[in-house]
Amino acid sequence: MSRIIIPIIFAIVSLSSFAQNDVKEDSIILKKIYDTSLLNGKSYSWLDYLSNQIGGRLSGSVNAQLAVEWGEKELKTLGIDKVWLQSVMVPKWTRGVTEFAYIETEPGVTTNVPICALGGSVPTPIGGIKASIIEVKGLEELSALGKEQIEGKLVFYNRPMQADLIETFRAYGGCVDQRYSGAAEAAKYGATGVIVRSMNLRLDDFPHTGAMSYGNLKDADKIPAVAISTNGADLLSSMLKLNPKIKFHINMNCRTWKDVKSYNVIGEIIGSEFPNEYMVVGGHLDSWDLGDGSHDDGAGVVQSMEVLRIFKEIGYKPKRSIRVVLFMNEENGLRGGKKYAEVAKNKGENHVFALESDAGGFTPRGFSFDCDDANFNMIEGWKPLFEPYLVHYFAKGGSGADIGPLKKDGIVLAGLRPDSQRYFDYHHAKNDTFDAVNKRELELGAATMTSLMYLFDKYGVK
Amino acid sequence: MSRIIIPIIFAIVSLSSFAQNDVKEDSIILKKIYDTSLLNGKSYSWLDYLSNQIGGRLSGSVNAQLAVEWGEKELKTLGIDKVWLQSVMVPKWTRGVTEFAYIETEPGVTTNVPICALGGSVPTPIGGIKASIIEVKGLEELSALGKEQIEGKLVFYNRPMQADLIETFRAYGGCVDQRYSGAAEAAKYGATGVIVRSMNLRLDDFPHTGAMSYGNLKDADKIPAVAISTNGADLLSSMLKLNPKIKFHINMNCRTWKDVKSYNVIGEIIGSEFPNEYMVVGGHLDSWDLGDGSHDDGAGVVQSMEVLRIFKEIGYKPKRSIRVVLFMNEENGLRGGKKYAEVAKNKGENHVFALESDAGGFTPRGFSFDCDDANFNMIEGWKPLFEPYLVHYFAKGGSGADIGPLKKDGIVLAGLRPDSQRYFDYHHAKNDTFDAVNKRELELGAATMTSLMYLFDKYGVK
Repeated sequence: MSRIIIPIIFAIVSLSSFAQNDVKEDSIILKKIYDTSLLNGKSYSWLDYLSNQIGGRLSGSVNAQLAVEWGEKELKTLGIDKVWLQSVMVPKWTRGVTEFAYIETEPGVTTNVPICALGGSVPTPIGGIKASIIEVKGLEELSALGKEQIEGKLVFYNRPMQADLIETFRAYGGCVDQRYSGAAEAAKYGATGVIVRSMNLRLDDFPHTGAMSYGNLKDADKIPAVAISTNGADLLSSMLKLNPKIKFHINMNCRTWKDVKSYNVIGEIIGSEFPNEYMVVGGHLDSWDLGDGSHDDGAGVVQSMEVLRIFKEIGYKPKRSIRVVLFMNEENGLRGGKKYAEVAKNKGENHVFALESDAGGFTPRGFSFDCDDANFNMIEGWKPLFEPYLVHYFAKGGSGADIGPLKKDGIVLAGLRPDSQRYFDYHHAKNDTFDAVNKRELELGAATMTSLMYLFDKYGVK
Repeated sequence: MSRIIIPIIFAIVSLSSFAQNDVKEDSIILKKIYDTSLLNGKSYSWLDYLSNQIGGRLSGSVNAQLAVEWGEKELKTLGIDKVWLQSVMVPKWTRGVTEFAYIETEPGVTTNVPICALGGSVPTPIGGIKASIIEVKGLEELSALGKEQIEGKLVFYNRPMQADLIETFRAYGGCVDQRYSGAAEAAKYGATGVIVRSMNLRLDDFPHTGAMSYGNLKDADKIPAVAISTNGADLLSSMLKLNPKIKFHINMNCRTWKDVKSYNVIGEIIGSEFPNEYMVVGGHLDSWDLGDGSHDDGAGVVQSMEVLRIFKEIGYKPKRSIRVVLFMNEENGLRGGKKYAEVAKNKGENHVFALESDAGGFTPRGFSFDCDDANFNMIEGWKPLFEPYLVHYFAKGGSGADIGPLKKDGIVLAGLRPDSQRYFDYHHAKNDTFDAVNKRELELGAATMTSLMYLFDKYGVK
């Protein structure tokens, strides 16, 4: 054995025994974190309150304000170092009197179908609109059809989510342009309104709302936009095949108001060694108005709060400053996320890591990371620590909408990835309610997030 | 480079390019399998029929017979080589008129609590039984208490499932002795009956039934046994703390009849190269009577049928003979599983592989295997093929109750492992119904099973 090899072996052995001690310590702490969440967790009872006592909380609503006050009050019970509200102007849109629609096969012969206004839509005139329908499979088909075929009609976007994609968020990404830009595009060809197939992989009677944009259309050119349930979409499509001349009636009185003042809710534990390095964990406090927003994103809110509560409960004192941020207005403006990043930048705060939970309260499968290779390699080394908790998925990819504006060189952004198979059954619909969330699944998610925060705090960002 | 090394390198290179072609072919076939299940699957509509048109199907019931006839008829539509019924005598136990129970704090002051008879229990005498209660945390506490404290009382087994265990089947395993042996043990100390906390991690109002045994007690010594819902158990425990003298009344008229004839339903595709090597995939056709048995084990039944249907649909001709077996009587006797193994042994059939799905129709996480190291190493080599489908869990462990009797040297036994967090919310209870099964999750399970069957058929068992 040469004189060079011996010291290398010693170095490897000592590194490895150091690493083994670390692994042992980390395993013990992760076990404590999971036990605390599963045996003595607070996430589920928090969600119960947020969902059942407050309910749906669209930006600018009374409920959104109640949620802000609740979040601040609850964070103040945790004994963390600071809790404050960060003001931000948000859009205010109201649904108004319950909207309705029907198919008219001939005058007086009508079939009701479940619809809802898309968020941000203009209303119909009083008395509603009625027009014949042209069905398309997406935005591309519009230009091929041209103004002649579209003018004066309702455009029916009916491209379904692709069921063969295993990750349902990819299937969503492949369809959501119909909802977001469908009205703006159809208006250019003189359409009188749009009907969009709900972003739902299941066949049922729930219409799913969601954000839309008119782009730079003038107010006078804006046309009403509704979502139709998947069953309703299939019915409408079948009836159109039998008789292309059927008409569709929509009645809604939604409205956009002036922006109003709202808040991000922020809590902080000051770091013991590197107080000027900030790590964020968060979800968004606002939700759509149809359900009570339990999966989207009540789950992410209470899981994020639970991260700091668990740290306090197990007596873990982070080296870096850890903030929980309950972002306002993810759904229809992202104003809270933008504001938080803007203030952080103006104050010169060094954000090194941010984690968002905004994909539902289902069994956690892992995380996706928006980061460089050095950090991703470090993360991959942590995989064995998560295996006892059946958390296997660690991949590069997107993180979360609210933390996106924090992106800069050197920061690691992460998104919790729960099982996604059921998510779009509930997303933005009336059935996104507390009973659709399983206590253990929610708690496992909170523990998985806390564990990742712990590891990043301990080892730092590369 | 020595003359020895060069041939080795050639061998490695050619092996590796062979292996790469195999991986490519396997990836393409797995994609076909998943696409077929998700886009053109039959498992969900089969389950709809079995659950909603037939319903709960306890061994010996009319519904069990209807399920046998349905299974045979459906398998015959698949164009496989053989379909037959294998007769087996099964126990017949009936619940009778709906059972009920209440807590009596003082004469005339009563509180109803949700209970159900455990499967196989003797009835109460007409008019029911009423006695005071002694609460224990498990079988161990009984002997410490002794006959003096137990005689004439109802023993209340109240050890809950351990919430900190990530794999809920382990938590079940840690409690189920109370249900299975609780009555036999308590009877030895002169108890008049037993009340067992439901095997459920959630707090709710559903009592969960399940198999129990009186061991070798004489008929005259058998005592009634019921499950109480988790909320009911917590209530009873609280009331006992306030007043240890409260009484509990149980009324039930369940009954055990003579064994009756029933059937395993079997379908087969004859292997093209090794027709005398048998591979089995199955679930159990019987279920408890309270719900409609959608998760336990309607899901496993239709997923197993789907394996053969997918092979036919994609035109895959297995080299080995593949059998789907819909086992009768897993829940309260395992007679179907034992009969199948007995007949196979008597006929000298060489069974090389068996896979069971009996853990619910939730998102598939992987498999556990009862096999030797050589086979397990081969299986581990297949992990990357499953990663695109978010199937990561491959571990040694149990397989399935019905295929257990096939165990012998050289056979590989496997069990599908779906996400288990929600399973015991429904297991053996009234809410195990079709609406609790998600179409995509069920279909992903079927595809995952089909993929494993394909790989074992292609590469054989070591």
